[in-house]
Amino acid sequence: MKAVRIYGKGDIRIEDVAIADPADDEVQIKVKDCGICGSDLHAFLEGWGLPTQPHPITGKTVPITLGHEFSGQVVKVGSGVDDLAVGDLVAVEPLIACGRCANCRAGNYNFCNKALAKDGAGNFLGFSQDGGMAEYANVQDVFAHKLPEGMSPELGAVCEPAAVAFEALKKSGLRAGQTVAVIGAGPIGLVTALLARIAGATRVFISDVSEVRLDQARKLGFKDILNPAQVDVNAVIREGVPDGVDVSFECAGVQPTFDTALKVTKRTGIVQIVALYGHSVNINITDDLIMQGIDVITTLCYNNSFPKVLEIINKHRDEFQSIVTKRIGLDDALEDGIKTLATDKTQVKILISPEI
Amino acid sequence: MKAVRIYGKGDIRIEDVAIADPADDEVQIKVKDCGICGSDLHAFLEGWGLPTQPHPITGKTVPITLGHEFSGQVVKVGSGVDDLAVGDLVAVEPLIACGRCANCRAGNYNFCNKALAKDGAGNFLGFSQDGGMAEYANVQDVFAHKLPEGMSPELGAVCEPAAVAFEALKKSGLRAGQTVAVIGAGPIGLVTALLARIAGATRVFISDVSEVRLDQARKLGFKDILNPAQVDVNAVIREGVPDGVDVSFECAGVQPTFDTALKVTKRTGIVQIVALYGHSVNINITDDLIMQGIDVITTLCYNNSFPKVLEIINKHRDEFQSIVTKRIGLDDALEDGIKTLATDKTQVKILISPEI
Ligand SMILES: NC(=O)c1ccc[n+]([C@@H]2O[C@H](COP(=O)([O-])OP(=O)(O)OC[C@H]3O[C@@H](n4cnc5c(N)ncnc54)[C@H](O)[C@@H]3O)[C@@H](O)[C@H]2O)c1
Ligand SMILES: NC(=O)c1ccc[n+]([C@@H]2O[C@H](COP(=O)([O-])OP(=O)(O)OC[C@H]3O[C@@H](n4cnc5c(N)ncnc54)[C@H](O)[C@@H]3O)[C@@H](O)[C@H]2O)c1
Ligand SMILES: [Zn+2]
Ligand SMILES: [Zn+2]
Repeated sequence: MKAVRIYGKGDIRIEDVAIADPADDEVQIKVKDCGICGSDLHAFLEGWGLPTQPHPITGKTVPITLGHEFSGQVVKVGSGVDDLAVGDLVAVEPLIACGRCANCRAGNYNFCNKALAKDGAGNFLGFSQDGGMAEYANVQDVFAHKLPEGMSPELGAVCEPAAVAFEALKKSGLRAGQTVAVIGAGPIGLVTALLARIAGATRVFISDVSEVRLDQARKLGFKDILNPAQVDVNAVIREGVPDGVDVSFECAGVQPTFDTALKVTKRTGIVQIVALYGHSVNINITDDLIMQGIDVITTLCYNNSFPKVLEIINKHRDEFQSIVTKRIGLDDALEDGIKTLATDKTQVKILISPEI
Repeated sequence: MKAVRIYGKGDIRIEDVAIADPADDEVQIKVKDCGICGSDLHAFLEGWGLPTQPHPITGKTVPITLGHEFSGQVVKVGSGVDDLAVGDLVAVEPLIACGRCANCRAGNYNFCNKALAKDGAGNFLGFSQDGGMAEYANVQDVFAHKLPEGMSPELGAVCEPAAVAFEALKKSGLRAGQTVAVIGAGPIGLVTALLARIAGATRVFISDVSEVRLDQARKLGFKDILNPAQVDVNAVIREGVPDGVDVSFECAGVQPTFDTALKVTKRTGIVQIVALYGHSVNINITDDLIMQGIDVITTLCYNNSFPKVLEIINKHRDEFQSIVTKRIGLDDALEDGIKTLATDKTQVKILISPEI
């Protein structure tokens, strides 16, 4: 079968590989759609997250088939699988976890202690186990979630980034009636804003330095759109919400956006960090946290969230469909997909569809 | 009456002042004991927290009577007070709050929005309202908490620092059966360790660079005592608790102790900051927070905690009594009290007792 294989920094090859039959606790799916994520670009540009030594759970090293935002149709079922059948459409939760360590047993399988690779390799399909940028993939049954009746595989592929945002909302404790600021309007920021609105936030401010990105937010129907190059973001937010927002979601990952998140949040509010930071940040704990009573909370991936997120997407199909801006075939994955993400900010979510 | 008055940085005078009758919602107490706190020393050395402009709630500027850790006996009762009577022994919760703003109404009166002074003056008695280093003090009825039957005013004066630690435990979510590291064994760290043990923590590691301070911890019966100048704190903790502690309490307030707190805490654990930091810290959000699933939480003072803390102290009188290392009279407040704190690390809690 055809697959998008990464060998290391700067080395992605589209090649033919064999796929084994699914293990007892796995299903094999024919991949329908697989989103491209900023981290795929990082893997390509910097070798980020790739296993150079055998991963402690999967035993794999590069080359690896990329892709962790995918959906597909079950074509083979392992002998121990009883809740999935050939023909089922599923969205894949792309985590690798042992299921046995203290964190797994506490429900925090996104922090599986056994999956901690010494070389920093990610505990995801598409990093330390073959992922979804291929014609077929084998996935563990517990991580293959059936799509709600009638929902498209395209929307199924959007579940992964939506689950990242959902987890951030969950962790932040956001409740209906509260106000929100989303800093950074990339795919993650936009989906976070969508989910905040769906969760009943009464005001959702969105800030980005890129007008193209802000246009995407406008297209999704958001009104409180702020460009820090043009306005004082904090001043504008405080006009509408004098005490500051209840929760801010930091989806950009640099010192200025970290500072903005702290600034626009009310005393006793929550700064929920979603972005991964390339550099350390400086923080005045006394003035900005203690005296403000602001908690800075982070999240990594998701746990126990996919079924809920699928139901939400299914109820709001049009909104989530509109973040899909392009669909391409496997052969174009590198040039028109991964590389395009780096340059074309009009793209929100590019999907690879092996059937194209 | 005699009072310890601060006029500004470096200027403390013990002088005679008049005291008004209590307002309708106040009681007047004859002060029994008043602890000296590190922040009193900061006020003396740096003018920290003192109102140079009229405080938004109290209207006061310096000079102010110091003292925010105090207990006393009710001698006069305002006309609107119905749950306190002459003769009652009380511990004073030394907060200044409007009772009407959004934070006050949400129960977070320690973050009263109205009490936010532009010049950074503290919203405490002893900073922006006359405090307890005097023969008498007027305090609001809701902030005067009756001592449990038979409990001494000395222990009542210890309630304030214990409430700081209690709030930190509350915020951290610490539960019985969990493991704890306390970084910094000053008065706050020691009381935090005591409360953690009382709350059922099964292991309490205590770290400090000062052997004198660690000796205090040993006297309180703690066994896991660590001096970072002598051992690798993280390595020793991980010998006992391989995954790291569930909660670490940062009670020192410098970059190295912040880093230690992050390091010794388990993945998905809590770093609870109690210390005020004199300088900004640097933090690697991706590696140290997101990938670890560690939340960094802070606390400021306390709310709705004094009655619970008084009951705890009353049940553990000996432990809390042993943190009182000295009692002095009002006349000696500066030389043998405030200044001594800066130099004599064998002191944990020095009490000023106007009746001495
Ligand atoms: N925590 C997790 O589990 C998780 C999962 C997926 C992605 N992420 C992270 O989430 C972040 C967002 O992902 P994405 O795919 O949307 O990335 P992205 O790069 O497409 O979006 C970031 C946005 O921030 C904007 N930005 C940069 N500087 C800004 C500034 N000063 N003010 C306002 N906006 C500014 C950029 O213009 C961009 O639109 C990334 O850091 C990614 O690594 C985290
Ligand atoms: N959040 C609040 O509401 C609140 C209330 C009261 C006090 N505080 C703060 O709590 C902190 C502790 O108060 P305290 O009165 O116990 O102060 P303290 O100065 O007496 O104690 C701090 C301790 O930290 C130790 N320390 C310094 N460097 C260290 C290192 N590298 N490793 C280990 N230990 C180290 C010191 O030796 C000292 O014993 C202070 O910062 C104070 O301002 C906060
Ligand atoms: Zn695990
Ligand atoms: Zn208030």
